[in-house]
Amino acid sequence: MPRPVTLFTGQWADLSLEDLAGKAASFGFDGLELACWGDHFEVDRALGGPDYLREKRELLEQNGLECWAIGAHLVGQAVCDPIDERHRAIVPPEVWGDGEREGVRLRAAERMKDTARAAAAFGITQVNGFTGSPIWHQLYSFPPNDFAEIDRGYQEFAERWGPIIDVFDAEGVRFGLEVHPTEIAYDFVTTRRTLEAIDRREGFGINFDPSHLAPQFLDSAAFVTEFADRIYHVHVKDAKRRLDGRRSILASHLNFGERERGWDFVSPGHGDVDFEELVRALNRIGYAGPLSIEWEDSGMEREYGAQDALAFVRRTDFAPSELAFDAAMQKADG
Amino acid sequence: MPRPVTLFTGQWADLSLEDLAGKAASFGFDGLELACWGDHFEVDRALGGPDYLREKRELLEQNGLECWAIGAHLVGQAVCDPIDERHRAIVPPEVWGDGEREGVRLRAAERMKDTARAAAAFGITQVNGFTGSPIWHQLYSFPPNDFAEIDRGYQEFAERWGPIIDVFDAEGVRFGLEVHPTEIAYDFVTTRRTLEAIDRREGFGINFDPSHLAPQFLDSAAFVTEFADRIYHVHVKDAKRRLDGRRSILASHLNFGERERGWDFVSPGHGDVDFEELVRALNRIGYAGPLSIEWEDSGMEREYGAQDALAFVRRTDFAPSELAFDAAMQKADG
Amino acid sequence: MPRPVTLFTGQWADLSLEDLAGKAASFGFDGLELACWGDHFEVDRALGGPDYLREKRELLEQNGLECWAIGAHLVGQAVCDPIDERHRAIVPPEVWGDGEREGVRLRAAERMKDTARAAAAFGITQVNGFTGSPIWHQLYSFPPNDFAEIDRGYQEFAERWGPIIDVFDAEGVRFGLEVHPTEIAYDFVTTRRTLEAIDRREGFGINFDPSHLAPQFLDSAAFVTEFADRIYHVHVKDAKRRLDGRRSILASHLNFGERERGWDFVSPGHGDVDFEELVRALNRIGYAGPLSIEWEDSGMEREYGAQDALAFVRRTDFAPSELAFDAAMQKADG
Amino acid sequence: MPRPVTLFTGQWADLSLEDLAGKAASFGFDGLELACWGDHFEVDRALGGPDYLREKRELLEQNGLECWAIGAHLVGQAVCDPIDERHRAIVPPEVWGDGEREGVRLRAAERMKDTARAAAAFGITQVNGFTGSPIWHQLYSFPPNDFAEIDRGYQEFAERWGPIIDVFDAEGVRFGLEVHPTEIAYDFVTTRRTLEAIDRREGFGINFDPSHLAPQFLDSAAFVTEFADRIYHVHVKDAKRRLDGRRSILASHLNFGERERGWDFVSPGHGDVDFEELVRALNRIGYAGPLSIEWEDSGMEREYGAQDALAFVRRTDFAPSELAFDAAMQKADG
Amino acid sequence: MPRPVTLFTGQWADLSLEDLAGKAASFGFDGLELACWGDHFEVDRALGGPDYLREKRELLEQNGLECWAIGAHLVGQAVCDPIDERHRAIVPPEVWGDGEREGVRLRAAERMKDTARAAAAFGITQVNGFTGSPIWHQLYSFPPNDFAEIDRGYQEFAERWGPIIDVFDAEGVRFGLEVHPTEIAYDFVTTRRTLEAIDRREGFGINFDPSHLAPQFLDSAAFVTEFADRIYHVHVKDAKRRLDGRRSILASHLNFGERERGWDFVSPGHGDVDFEELVRALNRIGYAGPLSIEWEDSGMEREYGAQDALAFVRRTDFAPSELAFDAAMQKADG
Amino acid sequence: MPRPVTLFTGQWADLSLEDLAGKAASFGFDGLELACWGDHFEVDRALGGPDYLREKRELLEQNGLECWAIGAHLVGQAVCDPIDERHRAIVPPEVWGDGEREGVRLRAAERMKDTARAAAAFGITQVNGFTGSPIWHQLYSFPPNDFAEIDRGYQEFAERWGPIIDVFDAEGVRFGLEVHPTEIAYDFVTTRRTLEAIDRREGFGINFDPSHLAPQFLDSAAFVTEFADRIYHVHVKDAKRRLDGRRSILASHLNFGERERGWDFVSPGHGDVDFEELVRALNRIGYAGPLSIEWEDSGMEREYGAQDALAFVRRTDFAPSELAFDAAMQKADG
Repeated sequence: MPRPVTLFTGQWADLSLEDLAGKAASFGFDGLELACWGDHFEVDRALGGPDYLREKRELLEQNGLECWAIGAHLVGQAVCDPIDERHRAIVPPEVWGDGEREGVRLRAAERMKDTARAAAAFGITQVNGFTGSPIWHQLYSFPPNDFAEIDRGYQEFAERWGPIIDVFDAEGVRFGLEVHPTEIAYDFVTTRRTLEAIDRREGFGINFDPSHLAPQFLDSAAFVTEFADRIYHVHVKDAKRRLDGRRSILASHLNFGERERGWDFVSPGHGDVDFEELVRALNRIGYAGPLSIEWEDSGMEREYGAQDALAFVRRTDFAPSELAFDAAMQKADG
Repeated sequence: MPRPVTLFTGQWADLSLEDLAGKAASFGFDGLELACWGDHFEVDRALGGPDYLREKRELLEQNGLECWAIGAHLVGQAVCDPIDERHRAIVPPEVWGDGEREGVRLRAAERMKDTARAAAAFGITQVNGFTGSPIWHQLYSFPPNDFAEIDRGYQEFAERWGPIIDVFDAEGVRFGLEVHPTEIAYDFVTTRRTLEAIDRREGFGINFDPSHLAPQFLDSAAFVTEFADRIYHVHVKDAKRRLDGRRSILASHLNFGERERGWDFVSPGHGDVDFEELVRALNRIGYAGPLSIEWEDSGMEREYGAQDALAFVRRTDFAPSELAFDAAMQKADG
Repeated sequence: MPRPVTLFTGQWADLSLEDLAGKAASFGFDGLELACWGDHFEVDRALGGPDYLREKRELLEQNGLECWAIGAHLVGQAVCDPIDERHRAIVPPEVWGDGEREGVRLRAAERMKDTARAAAAFGITQVNGFTGSPIWHQLYSFPPNDFAEIDRGYQEFAERWGPIIDVFDAEGVRFGLEVHPTEIAYDFVTTRRTLEAIDRREGFGINFDPSHLAPQFLDSAAFVTEFADRIYHVHVKDAKRRLDGRRSILASHLNFGERERGWDFVSPGHGDVDFEELVRALNRIGYAGPLSIEWEDSGMEREYGAQDALAFVRRTDFAPSELAFDAAMQKADG
Repeated sequence: MPRPVTLFTGQWADLSLEDLAGKAASFGFDGLELACWGDHFEVDRALGGPDYLREKRELLEQNGLECWAIGAHLVGQAVCDPIDERHRAIVPPEVWGDGEREGVRLRAAERMKDTARAAAAFGITQVNGFTGSPIWHQLYSFPPNDFAEIDRGYQEFAERWGPIIDVFDAEGVRFGLEVHPTEIAYDFVTTRRTLEAIDRREGFGINFDPSHLAPQFLDSAAFVTEFADRIYHVHVKDAKRRLDGRRSILASHLNFGERERGWDFVSPGHGDVDFEELVRALNRIGYAGPLSIEWEDSGMEREYGAQDALAFVRRTDFAPSELAFDAAMQKADG
Repeated sequence: MPRPVTLFTGQWADLSLEDLAGKAASFGFDGLELACWGDHFEVDRALGGPDYLREKRELLEQNGLECWAIGAHLVGQAVCDPIDERHRAIVPPEVWGDGEREGVRLRAAERMKDTARAAAAFGITQVNGFTGSPIWHQLYSFPPNDFAEIDRGYQEFAERWGPIIDVFDAEGVRFGLEVHPTEIAYDFVTTRRTLEAIDRREGFGINFDPSHLAPQFLDSAAFVTEFADRIYHVHVKDAKRRLDGRRSILASHLNFGERERGWDFVSPGHGDVDFEELVRALNRIGYAGPLSIEWEDSGMEREYGAQDALAFVRRTDFAPSELAFDAAMQKADG
Repeated sequence: MPRPVTLFTGQWADLSLEDLAGKAASFGFDGLELACWGDHFEVDRALGGPDYLREKRELLEQNGLECWAIGAHLVGQAVCDPIDERHRAIVPPEVWGDGEREGVRLRAAERMKDTARAAAAFGITQVNGFTGSPIWHQLYSFPPNDFAEIDRGYQEFAERWGPIIDVFDAEGVRFGLEVHPTEIAYDFVTTRRTLEAIDRREGFGINFDPSHLAPQFLDSAAFVTEFADRIYHVHVKDAKRRLDGRRSILASHLNFGERERGWDFVSPGHGDVDFEELVRALNRIGYAGPLSIEWEDSGMEREYGAQDALAFVRRTDFAPSELAFDAAMQKADG
């Protein structure tokens, strides 16, 4: 079990980092992937002076926890999205400002640059997050899409994120897009196009989360193999399809946790992700970073689940072989 | 084979109705479901004086073709949708007008009322079409949806379509929503909510098209059984999933016909729809209307396909039994 | 297409043989398997004087139809069953008599002997039918079965049917049990035990009907292969499972044709029987007798169905190869 | 892991309760569901004076075991069944009496009333059991059923069990039918009919055991969801299908444990029941009662198995979430 | 149905070409793919003077048959194989000579050059065939393979076939390897390596036959897509897996047609090849050549089968669409 | 968990037995199955004097390990194989000698006799191994096999192994062929033929290893049931298919561990073998010998894997029931 296992704090933002760190330590986690919301990792305060980060670091150390990455999903989402009321709830007030759509996008982009700076100041090199998408809402081509418009969507993404990644490069930090519906990349085809749009520059890679591929019937091991050089960080999260001819894979505009959805997120190991094959693929590509549990399961108690998930990862993660076995067979007894 | 088989003309609008009617007759169709675009069935001209409709009727009669329904999908889409550039291409210029979003919606609603009037004038009682949707673009709840907003979406639909259906009622015409992604209803759950939103009034039913359910893994026979009293018209169209772990069921923002899509429309009988079970369900509920082939298959030549589809429907459609078989067994030889 | 295709008349007993023969001939059948009920083949009248059989034969000849077998399912059922009210409806009044249970069984046995005599008088050598079963009702072992009682059931079957088969042997006629739930044999295990119970005597074989195996998830081709020397006649009938997690394979005490059943009979080619593999197995074992369509489908109009079934059999039945193909490859060009 | 785990003692009646209680305690069970046979819970002695029940309770307490329910399957079976020799082995001699069929049924009904009284005296409110069925043996409609007779079967059930449930109501005890082949209810359809027959009165509910649904291809989670308000108690038992084209799902009149059966009972977690989905469904409906392991696996040593089953339940049972997860995402960092 | 359908004559070499041509014409084939064995197309005689080829051409013309390709599988096999007794039966005596292994290989190579010359003389540009393989027998790596030896196998293939293809190039003829077990290429991986070994030169392509991929669980449409520029000719042949836990996919050293094999060849449309997807793939890559039926089915009479196969191809082959369908939707009625 | 669990040392021959025994003991194994290569069990030295075997035994005892069997796979392979360069690497130099093919085979046969003698001297009665095969390379019948040659292959096997088994019989030792591709027996059909060829003599049985059946889609439980009286020893090893339409089940001449193979060996419990059913079958046939883990997984670290495998076997192996459960139900409370 060679890789550290961390807990992504995004779904625990109702708890203070102090409370959460104590719990996570007692559960046996090796570290935390801090979310940039709640009081877990506040970008503006992080840049406001050295005390804030020093205190965070001390808090982690007191609990014997490491930190290899932070998660800036919410603000990142606002960089490329057509802004609507829902964004008000996920970005800080100063990013929302007057809510004028282009203004929100620009301020979100600036905040992402600051996030790179704060990460560097904290001594880490990986920021995970979302990008948003100018074209997600044109998912189903009716009224018939103008596909030149789709092309322009990828271009707009590149124009908005290029300058952000410049700052990441300057700070020695890498961004990991969590490939995910509603983002510019959510599957094989769109990930290929996204990486091409941004010229496959090194500062922009992937925070791989298999739970977003499973409901699309996509093969996580194959994804990791194809995009091997851009797998910068890995989330451990699972999803389960419950298709019975009545429940739609499109989920019926129902919230997560509703019984009639055709799929839902579940605690790792309880769903359709083939983690065994995923671990083998990660072994092949030489991924040595954290396995970060993003725990979300509307049918399971959260603290029980976090521990169940940790135990699952511990028993599923294994190192690759260093031997060719039949070779051993060739050592004859003479 | 008791039901008439018609051809929906929407995908043949590059041909004049005169040319198309000749072809359809020679293929052996029983009638046409006229699309309200191209020169097939122009609502404004239909209401402009009796000659237009008389000439259409004569053209059909000369070809031995009947007409039981018309299709007003494109204008209907604009009634509830958030309007964007794509709608300009699908609505008549006078409906588009200056393109101001609410104005387009209101003019589209008026045109739908006119469509009911034109249908009545033409002597038919069924108009099929789309409704559009104020909430489709919130399909995936991220940023997290405000589900009260989703509820308001159904309510807005009812407010916009109620007055339209009033005119349908007055004209003795029924509307059949083609349950379809991008519409207010696209699966079991959303159809239930839609019918409830509009108080299950009789003027608003369903033009059932199984090709929109198959990619969602939904059971067409079960759908027909559940919504038996609202199945007013039936489209025969098929879709095929081609999931291999690399192609997403969400279709990757690719156009229909692209090789990398996870599913596509195909000629009836070449896909995943279980038409045998669908026919049995239609028999059970007593549906006696047309089976209207909406032909769309980006990998097959169109005229060959229309004939292949017609032959498929002819050999798949059968009447229900009138006997209980074991009863015959009880007639002993005494 | 080397084998004759006949129609089993059992499900058409509401029609006179005269009417049915005309229909069957016009549909293109090669012959009829006459049911021993209705006016199709009345055993008592057949033994009452030569005219009856001569007239039947003439009626068939006038319609160009052959007869290779008759079906005596209903009376046969009463030979081993615990008799109840339901049997009154399926046996002739003189067999039912006063309805005393053992008396009915004995009279049914005598009638089966007469059936062999009548078949011989008609010039045919195959009688198909049911046996009934003393133990069918103990299908599910609760209250826990006394398995010695099950053993005695097979023995009772042999005691009741042995004397009947003696008459069959004397008349040069063979009996073909239609392996079927409610009979002494309904699957592989029980067929093995049944044939052993009756000492594998030649006069007792099988009328193979795959529709009774499909709902049990049994492999028809494997059945034909295992019991090759006892496949005396073949019914063509189909069944379809409709299991969706709500419908039970045990069929819920619902009548055939009810929507909620987990399986039902369907017209040949519309169900789960793999007829292609069945034909290959019949070719291997050298079965050259009729393929007799027993048509029963509560969701399809009967006359349409009979023709659909005949066309299905014609295109599915093929002769075996007489060549080893790679042998042809070995004829080199020198 | 919020629910207590008990062991149903019915399959351990070869052991005295004293021996069994010691074992169960040492294995780690929270309690016992006492069977009304062996010396585990004798209804007649329970009503014969307070000592019997006090001693039973003390025996449980000495072992740290609780009791939430008793199981009266065997006598219950005789209430509606057509009585035959097999019932002699499962009912007490005084219930069997002279074995006259109606007499046995009536005495069994009286004993069920006494069982409610004894349960109340013991301080518990749940009695599980079987009902028997007047119509089970007509499972396969041949000779063709008279379906009015089937209707009368449900009515007879209601007439026989109504007065029994009156006593349950009076005693403040509820009956839980274990839905099961050979009982009046064994699947969705028959459970609906059964509950309707008895007017959905509250005193009559379900002891849900998924092992009886799995061989019928039924969905246990869906069952629990549909009959949520009547799920009064839950058995944990499993079954596995071993269909290979030769083994029948009807099980060939073979005893449990025979190799050629198409399905068999197995230790929980070793079969086809989806316990994960079942737990989620139980969470949704708010079931908080015991999970009672009814252990039966003819291929596994019993004491090993009971412990294996207990460990399986402990790691599979989990509490529901109390949070909407994306809500946590909305707590932005401002 | 745009592509011509031919019959490959290799499995009919027991008939003279004269007899076969008459049959094929009467069946309705468009042409023949002549095998270079029997009297169908004798390479040595073809090069012996102009009369031979003129007479062959006249024979075809008299029957209204075309010829687009010839098949030289048998001699080709000997070019790279380790020669054993089995090759004596498939090569002409003058190629076999004294049977010395290297001598046979060299003479086979010369005969392949002559085959190109004869094809050119006959006015055709396509020769199909096998290559043999120096390494096939090391299929399963035990005793452990020396994988450098495998590499040398590809190299040896290239050395032996390079000079042959030089002659093909000079004659303006292309070779189509039938990818097939026992050849240097039999699946995706080995086809990639084979084409690389021979530097992807144009003279060496593929005669695609899906029946050799199906038993390996390979996707024919994906194969055609990947090797689009090397699909020079297409065989229509099918194979069916019959895996039931007892029959091995490796086929148990049994001959084709044996019941216990895990797979076998079957008439087109009766097996596991997805011809619908194959046709769509051929449409995409623009393949316009013949569909050549190589008929082999040990369980079906040959002449019936050839006609059945032809009918199957005629109804399965269809041309691609020339339209983007939603485009038609955009032609609004204004 | 009644059966001892051993580790087969063949894949650990890079370690001295001393090192390996220490590791195995610390992991918790009950014993070792010693490979006849490396320094684990050297046949020539074992026969060279008593010290060698006494020291081996002491080494095992010091580690608390037992030995029930030895593995002589490599030399056995050379007995029937057509010898090539690959065998040089797997046999001792004195068996290889000058490498002349027949000489190698004869010396390998003599060494197998010595192996029986050495086993007896060591006090054990089971030698596992391979046989080689004269016909394996004719796996796919092209050029068409002469099937008389296949028959002769089985005969040759019997002629070569008969005298070896004579020595086994004399020594009171049994041979267990590991049924495996490249051996004379690798599936059901070939195992039947092999056992018949050698007259089902008791000295020749099977070392059953399910990992060689899984890639052939064969049923391990059915194999154990059919060959129950010849299952002398059991290996625990697993294999996993990874078929995705691109990877061939024939494995593309790729080495184990290559990503593009269609199947590979994996650590027990991580693959397609149904060990639960296998254990039940072993219970039925009364197999009481060791479960010997042959550990080979190119994607998992070896020492972690051996421990993971041991834990898997411990929790999967269980003893059979000694009770008929419903019997307990019959003990009524009277």
